[in-house]
Amino acid sequence: MRIILDGMGGDYAPDAIVEGAVRSLPDLPKNWDICLVGKEDMLRKSLKAFGYTGDRISIENADEVITNDDAPVRAIRRKKQSSIVIGLNLVKAGKGDVFISAGSTGALLAGGLLILGRIRGIDRPTLATLYPVIGAEPSLLTDAGANAECKPRNLLEFGMMGSVYMEKVLDRPNPTVGLINNGSEEEKGTPLTKKARKYLAKSSLNFIGYIESRDLQTPAADVIVTDGFTGNALLKLTEGMGLMMLREIKKLFRSSAVSKLSALLVGKQLIAMKNQLDYREYGGAPILGLRSAVLKMHGSSDATAVYHTILKAVPYVEQDVVGIIENSVRSGGVKSVMETVDQEEKSEETSAHSLGNGK
Amino acid sequence: MRIILDGMGGDYAPDAIVEGAVRSLPDLPKNWDICLVGKEDMLRKSLKAFGYTGDRISIENADEVITNDDAPVRAIRRKKQSSIVIGLNLVKAGKGDVFISAGSTGALLAGGLLILGRIRGIDRPTLATLYPVIGAEPSLLTDAGANAECKPRNLLEFGMMGSVYMEKVLDRPNPTVGLINNGSEEEKGTPLTKKARKYLAKSSLNFIGYIESRDLQTPAADVIVTDGFTGNALLKLTEGMGLMMLREIKKLFRSSAVSKLSALLVGKQLIAMKNQLDYREYGGAPILGLRSAVLKMHGSSDATAVYHTILKAVPYVEQDVVGIIENSVRSGGVKSVMETVDQEEKSEETSAHSLGNGK
Repeated sequence: MRIILDGMGGDYAPDAIVEGAVRSLPDLPKNWDICLVGKEDMLRKSLKAFGYTGDRISIENADEVITNDDAPVRAIRRKKQSSIVIGLNLVKAGKGDVFISAGSTGALLAGGLLILGRIRGIDRPTLATLYPVIGAEPSLLTDAGANAECKPRNLLEFGMMGSVYMEKVLDRPNPTVGLINNGSEEEKGTPLTKKARKYLAKSSLNFIGYIESRDLQTPAADVIVTDGFTGNALLKLTEGMGLMMLREIKKLFRSSAVSKLSALLVGKQLIAMKNQLDYREYGGAPILGLRSAVLKMHGSSDATAVYHTILKAVPYVEQDVVGIIENSVRSGGVKSVMETVDQEEKSEETSAHSLGNGK
Repeated sequence: MRIILDGMGGDYAPDAIVEGAVRSLPDLPKNWDICLVGKEDMLRKSLKAFGYTGDRISIENADEVITNDDAPVRAIRRKKQSSIVIGLNLVKAGKGDVFISAGSTGALLAGGLLILGRIRGIDRPTLATLYPVIGAEPSLLTDAGANAECKPRNLLEFGMMGSVYMEKVLDRPNPTVGLINNGSEEEKGTPLTKKARKYLAKSSLNFIGYIESRDLQTPAADVIVTDGFTGNALLKLTEGMGLMMLREIKKLFRSSAVSKLSALLVGKQLIAMKNQLDYREYGGAPILGLRSAVLKMHGSSDATAVYHTILKAVPYVEQDVVGIIENSVRSGGVKSVMETVDQEEKSEETSAHSLGNGK
């Protein structure tokens, strides 16, 4: 098994990427190796700096780099020699089992769609992110921003794909799935959430209904389903609240001699609590719904984040998340749920109509 | 000037409402009085309990109560003797200048629309809530949940109405207006936010562009514009994060003798910080865009919240927020901005089209 690792993506590339790769080797199963993609001279130099001389890390040269300033689709089409395009093509050609990158999210999504392609029957792949819950295991939030606008079927797909990932990669059997809404009562919601709720309720998922963002820290559900605009807003607010807490705690502890003593006593724990809220610390976010496994790391990932993401890639591939999603769709998952709900609604309308006529 | 105060709405009615009213009297301008609407015997008893015998609080009997379980529009149509319907009708008839209630938000919105009516030229009234910012003055978030689905023009209206309220009631001249988006770059966003951004940028408001929820605690802007689904999600997450902080701080301080000492030192300040995050503590939220002033209080409002809301009603009425909004619309505000942007877009399309033809 082989990890294709983008050596050029992210704020601290290539060194943080290379360091993370080197550190992961002892913990990677023996039949796994890593192929770094990027400017060969830079990557070689960095490998040398971290003292790696073994043969479990290979290098594939890529002369170009896609940056966050590049328009994603255009960059994928034009920068054929970029680490993202070459890396995704290696996976497509069967020369790797998973692609990991800390590069541009937009380019990864566009490249995933254009190069790897969607799983047949999935309308929209999703970026799923671990949502930090203080004092508990994280939830999986899908969509985290890849799809700002969604149709009801997309939310059903997100719930299904997120459940598979939660169960197989994060070891949480029969994960609960909740749908973000502006109220927990059935009559609340937008046409999008109302229809999606029906789809999810009819599916084989462990769907617990509408959840409100107030409950995300309780935690509310293993898998949190929402459109990418709302998901993005919730993630970023959580991050912003963490930063605010840090700022205020520092202010508090600086305010008097008495509180300086407190800073020594509980300051570290409070700051650790803030750090837990930083979703970037959780490392890789899978892009689900593509024909191969892809993990997106935050742009500011350090070697530790890279290390953790690499280890996540193992169950992602070995548990065959992509294959299970393919089977769920093939065995009628998404489509049959949608058809059942739509037919029921149609027959309700018809009977309401005939009742009306019979008056 | 007269405040029409719903004596029956909220979890602690009538006592918390009556107590808040009695406490507000010394701080209310001399030409203001209060009319309590609700079951007369209960209100009289409560007034007596708080020792009030003066003539600045009158009572208007209302035998029915609309609860949160009532379907809003239906309740407004059928419960003609409810405190909300009678109270709003008093304002409509000119027998009061502002209606304040801690009752059902849905019923207040429906009643506002059906009884008071919209300001001509305003498509959708908005519920605007003070958004708590730790260590700084609050922002005003509009829409806070009244309109789960919005058109671009609604976001322009929210920004305009929110600015007037911020300037006139909260004394913040020339308030900055920011639009929540999933990225600060112009090309980011949904069709809704992209179009609304153009409208807002063309308006006379102090528009600072897209803002991300990450920055809400910095604070990002005086007036935060978003659709009601996102606004609701952001408010409730902020509240949930506050509850989580309280839970974790308690846990931390309980964990050892050392941290029990810290609890004595900084515990109170940390809990005060959490309390600041509870948007319910801020009291009244105006419903803007109706033909009269309406303030909605949180259902769990205590006497202090009622007191603060009553005092907010004074500048809301005396500064003529409703009149200023009416004038802004009449002098072409919303409509002319929309028309200018739409015309510009049309002419851009036309020229692009003729360029295409000329190839």
